[in-house]
Amino acid sequence: MTARLAGFLADTRFERPTLVMDLNAVADRYRLLADALGSAKIHYAVKANPAPALLARLAKAGSNFDVASRGEIEQCLALGIPACRLSFGNTIKRRADIEFAYAAGVPLFAFDSPAELKKLADAAPDASVYCRVLVDGTGSEWPLGKKFGCADGLAEELLVQAAELGFKRPGISFHVGSQQTDLNAWDRCFARIRALIDRLAARGVDIGLVNLGGGFPATLIRSAKLDPKSYAETVRQLANRHFGDLDVALIAEPGRGLVADAGCIAAEVVLVSEKGDGDPRRWVFLDIGKFSGLAETMDEAIRYRFETPDNTGPMGPVVLAGPSCDSADVLYEKTEYGLPMTLQEGDRIWILSTGAYTTTYSSVGFNGFPPLDTICI
Amino acid sequence: MTARLAGFLADTRFERPTLVMDLNAVADRYRLLADALGSAKIHYAVKANPAPALLARLAKAGSNFDVASRGEIEQCLALGIPACRLSFGNTIKRRADIEFAYAAGVPLFAFDSPAELKKLADAAPDASVYCRVLVDGTGSEWPLGKKFGCADGLAEELLVQAAELGFKRPGISFHVGSQQTDLNAWDRCFARIRALIDRLAARGVDIGLVNLGGGFPATLIRSAKLDPKSYAETVRQLANRHFGDLDVALIAEPGRGLVADAGCIAAEVVLVSEKGDGDPRRWVFLDIGKFSGLAETMDEAIRYRFETPDNTGPMGPVVLAGPSCDSADVLYEKTEYGLPMTLQEGDRIWILSTGAYTTTYSSVGFNGFPPLDTICI
Repeated sequence: MTARLAGFLADTRFERPTLVMDLNAVADRYRLLADALGSAKIHYAVKANPAPALLARLAKAGSNFDVASRGEIEQCLALGIPACRLSFGNTIKRRADIEFAYAAGVPLFAFDSPAELKKLADAAPDASVYCRVLVDGTGSEWPLGKKFGCADGLAEELLVQAAELGFKRPGISFHVGSQQTDLNAWDRCFARIRALIDRLAARGVDIGLVNLGGGFPATLIRSAKLDPKSYAETVRQLANRHFGDLDVALIAEPGRGLVADAGCIAAEVVLVSEKGDGDPRRWVFLDIGKFSGLAETMDEAIRYRFETPDNTGPMGPVVLAGPSCDSADVLYEKTEYGLPMTLQEGDRIWILSTGAYTTTYSSVGFNGFPPLDTICI
Repeated sequence: MTARLAGFLADTRFERPTLVMDLNAVADRYRLLADALGSAKIHYAVKANPAPALLARLAKAGSNFDVASRGEIEQCLALGIPACRLSFGNTIKRRADIEFAYAAGVPLFAFDSPAELKKLADAAPDASVYCRVLVDGTGSEWPLGKKFGCADGLAEELLVQAAELGFKRPGISFHVGSQQTDLNAWDRCFARIRALIDRLAARGVDIGLVNLGGGFPATLIRSAKLDPKSYAETVRQLANRHFGDLDVALIAEPGRGLVADAGCIAAEVVLVSEKGDGDPRRWVFLDIGKFSGLAETMDEAIRYRFETPDNTGPMGPVVLAGPSCDSADVLYEKTEYGLPMTLQEGDRIWILSTGAYTTTYSSVGFNGFPPLDTICI
């Protein structure tokens, strides 16, 4: 946590759970990643945190943007971000939204299926396109499953088709898995992508773009010792080793790795209780839960760090849960967490590195609780 | 689905995913449950669906309301629902919210821990209170885990304390598990609660209220053959068998069982694709997903029924997923679902019995997609 963020948190009284974003920290991390990644252009994944002031700051810093929907495109355009700096990275797009984006001047579109490629050929005929390849996400904290991307063989056929449809120098994308702590995963992916590029070259298809996706980790419990700079530099070195002899443009799409560490949620303890069921752990209920910002605690995949500014002294084991009348609104029950034994109703609790994938996951008002508030400093 | 709902869906063109609620069907179900449950007062669980027109219709029909937060209390009061018809059923309440509710005239409050009982004694000294007991939820589709309630032994001690603190004729509540399809679960719970009441009577504590909670099922895949009327009548008979000789008031808190079947989500197919990975199933991507209304597909616990008005003919296996760039936004991957082989981009799809636990779970705008819209007819 930056000193600026810590100072603001200490000096402010929050009426409800609030994410505080230090935009200087975002700009610093942008420069760090941009320098470390070298020639790769950064397309910030807007879905990670679309706070207008944050987008404006990144635009000023020189960032491009990866957008997931027409709504995100409209938001970027409304902020004065030129359409030429956007890429429409969702492989699942309504035809009308492709038409909208193409007419607005968005130059780059993703696909991973014959039907989506056909839509692009119909609705965005002179765009640049790239095919997303399925990778397994081993080593990541939030593996991406099979929803996005297609198998290498299908990708090869689709890229041949793309070339036949007139798309010039199509690209390839993949994603190593969100919050990927194993740098070898990048190496393995790059080798596969290079083999695919070579097979396509042999069939006369010239690949013009490699989109490295995201996966750059934020400082969560498992990744607390990773250094963002050396991590990104290693990714660059690996990319250089596999693609350095080719004439391909590189893109990276950090979301979490760019903004998560710049944010901290100020929350409050509502109740500390025990169940009388023989489990020695206290249940600590916060005023924020799974449906008001902490959706990524699903299956306890993403493990945040906590600080308790009002409490010191001996720690004891806890279960952490949210305030709603929903049984699924438990944050950490299997993961071992410890918090001070003196913790009680009304005490403040900081949830660190929560600048990504929190605010927009908030429900509109589940159980009558308002969505997570954001303050940009 | 009622003929009225089917007619409206067929005649309407939806621009985005929309929940259509048939308020006549809600009122009909209210009367059915109220008749079947006899003397038990119905407190509709507002969190299931707080659409203002729906709350107003239920208030007109005579319903009371179970609220989870200050926000829900304010909403009910704004609609002209008298505070005396509300119960504050969340066992995790901010002290300031208890004070607010008590001052507004809310007469009934829940607790399940020493700290919460203490808060109530401080902030709502002349209220009626009830203690929630932990039950295991076996047989339910959405078991409630250990978040709410305490073990019987602790509940007994807390109710003795409540009486000592001056709370007159305190109550006991429990919840058999949401979407509970096994009527024996009620019988087992009732027997435990009766034993607890008898132990408390022996200690001089007179229990004045038994809150049966919710659990009344909607018509989902596993419960498609359950009849709501005979289900509720059986609950009444069981309650009568266990509590009929006592002078206790009864409350029931149906949420899903009261409103889910009156609603249907109108959605659309965005993409049908295959992965080329040897899995013969098609991936069907809808314009609604886990973060825009279908949160209860988490772990594939709640299994909705689908209808495809634009397609007939042979069916084939599918994976169902939402439109966002989030890997977790897969609706059904393990559960076997079949949809017509002719299904394609732009086709309509109806998601049945979705009148509960959908709209308010919607994220405020994850990935730039708007929250689920509601139309009450």
